[in-house]
Amino acid sequence: MTPSQFREEGKKMVDWIADYYENIESHPVLSQVKPGEIYNNLPDAAPVKGESVDQMLGDVYKDIFPGLTHWQSPNFFAFFPANGSFPGILGDMLSSGLGVQGMIWATSPACTEVESKVMDWLVDMMQLPQVFKTTSEGGGVIQDSASSSVLTAVIAAREKATGYTSNEEGTHNKLVAYVSTQTHSSVEKAVKIAGIGLNNLRKIECDGNLGMNAKVLQQQIRDDKKKGYIPFFVCATMGSTSSNAMDPLRDIGEICHTENCWLHVDAAMAGTAMLCPEFRYLLDGVDLAHSYCFNPHKWMFTNLDCSCFYVSDKRHLINTFSILPEYLKNKATESGAVIDYRDWHIQLGRRFRALKLWFVIRHYGVEGLQHHIRGHVRLAQEFTQWVSQSDDFELVVQPPLNLVCFRHKAGDDFNMKLMEAANATGKAYFTHTKIKGQVALRVVIGQTNTEEKHVKAVWELIQDTAKALKGQHQ
Amino acid sequence: MTPSQFREEGKKMVDWIADYYENIESHPVLSQVKPGEIYNNLPDAAPVKGESVDQMLGDVYKDIFPGLTHWQSPNFFAFFPANGSFPGILGDMLSSGLGVQGMIWATSPACTEVESKVMDWLVDMMQLPQVFKTTSEGGGVIQDSASSSVLTAVIAAREKATGYTSNEEGTHNKLVAYVSTQTHSSVEKAVKIAGIGLNNLRKIECDGNLGMNAKVLQQQIRDDKKKGYIPFFVCATMGSTSSNAMDPLRDIGEICHTENCWLHVDAAMAGTAMLCPEFRYLLDGVDLAHSYCFNPHKWMFTNLDCSCFYVSDKRHLINTFSILPEYLKNKATESGAVIDYRDWHIQLGRRFRALKLWFVIRHYGVEGLQHHIRGHVRLAQEFTQWVSQSDDFELVVQPPLNLVCFRHKAGDDFNMKLMEAANATGKAYFTHTKIKGQVALRVVIGQTNTEEKHVKAVWELIQDTAKALKGQHQ
Repeated sequence: MTPSQFREEGKKMVDWIADYYENIESHPVLSQVKPGEIYNNLPDAAPVKGESVDQMLGDVYKDIFPGLTHWQSPNFFAFFPANGSFPGILGDMLSSGLGVQGMIWATSPACTEVESKVMDWLVDMMQLPQVFKTTSEGGGVIQDSASSSVLTAVIAAREKATGYTSNEEGTHNKLVAYVSTQTHSSVEKAVKIAGIGLNNLRKIECDGNLGMNAKVLQQQIRDDKKKGYIPFFVCATMGSTSSNAMDPLRDIGEICHTENCWLHVDAAMAGTAMLCPEFRYLLDGVDLAHSYCFNPHKWMFTNLDCSCFYVSDKRHLINTFSILPEYLKNKATESGAVIDYRDWHIQLGRRFRALKLWFVIRHYGVEGLQHHIRGHVRLAQEFTQWVSQSDDFELVVQPPLNLVCFRHKAGDDFNMKLMEAANATGKAYFTHTKIKGQVALRVVIGQTNTEEKHVKAVWELIQDTAKALKGQHQ
Repeated sequence: MTPSQFREEGKKMVDWIADYYENIESHPVLSQVKPGEIYNNLPDAAPVKGESVDQMLGDVYKDIFPGLTHWQSPNFFAFFPANGSFPGILGDMLSSGLGVQGMIWATSPACTEVESKVMDWLVDMMQLPQVFKTTSEGGGVIQDSASSSVLTAVIAAREKATGYTSNEEGTHNKLVAYVSTQTHSSVEKAVKIAGIGLNNLRKIECDGNLGMNAKVLQQQIRDDKKKGYIPFFVCATMGSTSSNAMDPLRDIGEICHTENCWLHVDAAMAGTAMLCPEFRYLLDGVDLAHSYCFNPHKWMFTNLDCSCFYVSDKRHLINTFSILPEYLKNKATESGAVIDYRDWHIQLGRRFRALKLWFVIRHYGVEGLQHHIRGHVRLAQEFTQWVSQSDDFELVVQPPLNLVCFRHKAGDDFNMKLMEAANATGKAYFTHTKIKGQVALRVVIGQTNTEEKHVKAVWELIQDTAKALKGQHQ
């Protein structure tokens, strides 16, 4: 394909994407295909001769479209969102177009330095600790996911705790990590991957608001030390996946400080709210964190994949992950004057992901971002009021930001049926969790194009579906 | 930004990218900025108010462009390539536009099933073992990088070797992994991350052709077993990063089979050559592999990031990586009829990466892909002849495919100076390695738009630079 053919085909693709967003509400949000349906409709063998872009785009509609769950629909309220935006797509296009591989500074200095700059901007935009800045002892790096971010933290913490000997000698089974019962499953996965072992992961019980009970944490650490274990890592959550619960960062941070544990703060979705000063009370204690992570690809209008991972001391990463084979040696690295981000994460090769973040921040501006985040929180609080005023439904916990957990009073089975029936209409998509042993429905308001009318519509859908189901039962 | 504004801005971006490729040869291939130059030129704070796309694109030229090393230039011969293509960009645009997150089948069935289908196509396109197909005991998954692929393999192998107890109990320091002195550094990194410890990594010596000496491997495994170690993992390389050296897969595979070790085959760049039947003799023994990886983002015209990772028994992945919190439970997963790729790798969230692979394969067709790969290999063999016929230069090893290692006869220092001087002209970019203790220059021919004239030009540049340096020295 020549550049001039790409001009033509690329513009068709832009129109295709614009059309998609103009019509996105006409498709069922949750895909309704059966297992295997998409796979079986595609040809069994790759074409021998090349095919046209028109043919391919036609097949996208025919063969792929029915199998899409539309994450960019304003009627998507499930999980945590992945709220892309047009400026994010533009930045991603530029990254694909330039096609640079920024494994080390020398292989594209801009890929490293724009990332450093944008990560530093975010520190100020959110009043995160200044030590997280590139120009300080710490720094920030874009990872693909919060899972990779927390794994990076666990590994670095493991090495710090063992004087960088596990890298050499392998781990031993005395290291112990701590989460709450509400912490994201990615920490369990990281503890497995890192060779710590799930038997050495303690799930600390929570208070009524589903935040970690710091006193129980303190006691557990003391008990473990008495038994000869080495507590090394605590994950505190700002906004749990299940219910957006907040762990008491300062209390946990002080325990970590005293007990010499690495504190990782997982703020995967809620972290974006730190753009707004009125939510920054949640950051209290984050100055005690060794690492901190939030995902602009969840709530900050930046297309997958973009997870911002900060550390307060970059040496822990470099000491842990650095490897320098001959073919990557170069003067800039040897000078020590540059960052080689490959030493800050698992992967070697890396895309120029900072461009999409740069585009998003510049397009919206700080005030624009604040405006949209506040809008989502306001809509979630309205939804909360409707639930509170309803006779049939009840709130499960008080939502601090944009995630509402509630349920119909008719019990677990009814709530699951209600959710499945509502999602099967294709009009909206929301998911469930279990809180204190009971099913709760989750509505997350964070999709880029979600407006009040969409939130009203999903609430009506939930009420109407409940009434229809009740009618069937009676 | 509305869809109609995106139509306008997106088309500008398409034109920007097309312009970039039309003029790419007018820029120095290797960026010539100093450390900090790009960072310091960017504003210290994010804008408060939003800015226009025109402004942003203008700043890309002004602030970012000087810091780019142009991986998509036909004069890029460094490292392994990252050879994108316009169809790849189109597929990536579509992925950004759809913005789906395919962590589990239910969150976008097409994201999973197109991936399964394309990965199965490639098994047939390259005559890989049928057991790697989704419809068999094995299967394939797209990872972001070969580093992540090999880490996944190491972890799964660790669990297999310990009866899935390390996940629970942590690792112990009796497990031993094996690589050659030429194996990619990502295996060292993975062994560190997995808690195996570098002391438990054996670097087996190589034969004259820089392939692993299987007899030494066999002896080392026996010695380790005698000492009470548990050999669990061997990485065999098809096309080493340093010199494209080939390990004897079948010999190593048979040892792994007898000794009950996991065999991972790293074919990161060279794997793409398996599209052509005449190179498939290199696959001999791959039927003994537990896992196999090649990166279409290196040599198969598929934009970063796209690493194809196959296993012969998917249960090892699922047993190792599966975690199912309440909020991800769903009927499709419970039915067992679908693949949830989050259980096949480290990350939870995942982009729809299969689209770019689907676009590339369909655009080129199998014959088109073969044509381009054969062209690159032919050009590398021509370059090899020129070196052989030169009085001043010598081949370091016989290149099997598209990577030529050679050197000027004037010694290590001279070769390093020659490389730096040639790269500083901006006319081309190539890198170095060390082979048998001596510096070798590496020219890799794999960039999408590299033609004979570019290869001739880099050879002339190298000869002219050598002459000029000799002149200075005399």
